[in-house]
Amino acid sequence: MPADVEIVALDGIPEIASGDDLGTILGDAIERTAGLPPLREDDVLVVTQKIVSKAENAIVDLTTIEPRVEAVRFAERWDRDPRQIEVVLREARRVIRMERGVLITETPHGFICANGGVDASNVGPESGQVVTLLPRDPDASARAIREAIRSRFDVDVPVIVSDSFGRPWRWGIVDVAIGVSGLEPIEDLRGTPDADGRVMKSTIRASADEIASAAELALGKIGRRPAAVVRGAHPRLGEGSIADVLMPRKFDLFP
Amino acid sequence: MPADVEIVALDGIPEIASGDDLGTILGDAIERTAGLPPLREDDVLVVTQKIVSKAENAIVDLTTIEPRVEAVRFAERWDRDPRQIEVVLREARRVIRMERGVLITETPHGFICANGGVDASNVGPESGQVVTLLPRDPDASARAIREAIRSRFDVDVPVIVSDSFGRPWRWGIVDVAIGVSGLEPIEDLRGTPDADGRVMKSTIRASADEIASAAELALGKIGRRPAAVVRGAHPRLGEGSIADVLMPRKFDLFP
Repeated sequence: MPADVEIVALDGIPEIASGDDLGTILGDAIERTAGLPPLREDDVLVVTQKIVSKAENAIVDLTTIEPRVEAVRFAERWDRDPRQIEVVLREARRVIRMERGVLITETPHGFICANGGVDASNVGPESGQVVTLLPRDPDASARAIREAIRSRFDVDVPVIVSDSFGRPWRWGIVDVAIGVSGLEPIEDLRGTPDADGRVMKSTIRASADEIASAAELALGKIGRRPAAVVRGAHPRLGEGSIADVLMPRKFDLFP
Repeated sequence: MPADVEIVALDGIPEIASGDDLGTILGDAIERTAGLPPLREDDVLVVTQKIVSKAENAIVDLTTIEPRVEAVRFAERWDRDPRQIEVVLREARRVIRMERGVLITETPHGFICANGGVDASNVGPESGQVVTLLPRDPDASARAIREAIRSRFDVDVPVIVSDSFGRPWRWGIVDVAIGVSGLEPIEDLRGTPDADGRVMKSTIRASADEIASAAELALGKIGRRPAAVVRGAHPRLGEGSIADVLMPRKFDLFP
């Protein structure tokens, strides 16, 4: 099938541990993935947050955490782990909502999401005792992977670090971009003629988020693989930052 | 490339007019699209809202609209078309935000989105004088297309009607599902073991939204094509409704 867009999940990425060289591991996986043709500059490599956080040791051992009274009360009322609530509050730049068992905060990066991206599931043998934090600088994480791929394969492939976020008003999570290197995560098509030749007024497309969601479809649900190559999405190449995806404060109607 | 997920935009869909038989037109496009192999039951057909609305005559001629005072004031202040504002307000079940030039309403379907899905761009030769509304019953729209495809090709392919929505806190639009037939738009993976064998607590994935976003990557930006086949996404088949995607009121922290 001569598809417009093709997505291939990478095979054989092992359990990632603190200090692992993710660039090398991803390069090995690219070589190992059966039938994946040579990388091209119109590919995008999507890497999920969990393995980036683990490699960067963005992990907190919950047994070391002493929750504050507020965290204990919220956790007791809503059947949650008070130590995880404590970690979320410590990481938060501000709390957007803390009610009905849901804690939505603004992270140091400016993301507004449930639990500030602090995640308990799927963190390896210590499951239940450790949580992952978001990478400190996800653009830098993406850039390091991009450099490693470029030096090994001599092709400059944009990289997206992705994570699963909920959304107001719509049920369920979708994968979005939380770090980018080598592409513009937002494509401003304002002033571009549409199919009728009419100038579009406000088409600002969050392409990196769409690519992250598309990659998730290949990564699967159970025994999920943590990285995929997306070919044919044709993002706008450039030195964009995930900060470009943050709603400018003056347009934020939901502070 | 033996891709996990493949997306093919359909070729040669003509300008759609009121009353057009979209099922037949899409079937013709499927036959016409070079190299698209026979449809399979693990395909999903994604059709963008604009052509569905046009075929169903969910269109308003702005020259017939007399805007209320509130619409005129808002439009003058923010350089918008008062007649479009009037149409949005008439369609709205409630107004969520109406400030800084942005009008966010709840549609009769329960979607919360900018301009209630009323859209001025790309509506053919009458551009600027007509707007499209969302289909009255997008699940029914999807079902009718699914039936037409099934009777013509003898294969039952789930259908998603998609539209572009903004999101709080994140800049830019992404495509999401606004109508479904033949799949569950939300996959509740709670209680499913994750890759570590640990039971995941709260993975409820909005698969239909991810499939809609993935399709958009193939539909392109300029001269965009209005429908695509997504193969390999493996949505959960079933008789779901887009109502399943609406945040249950008791969990809505942003009323």
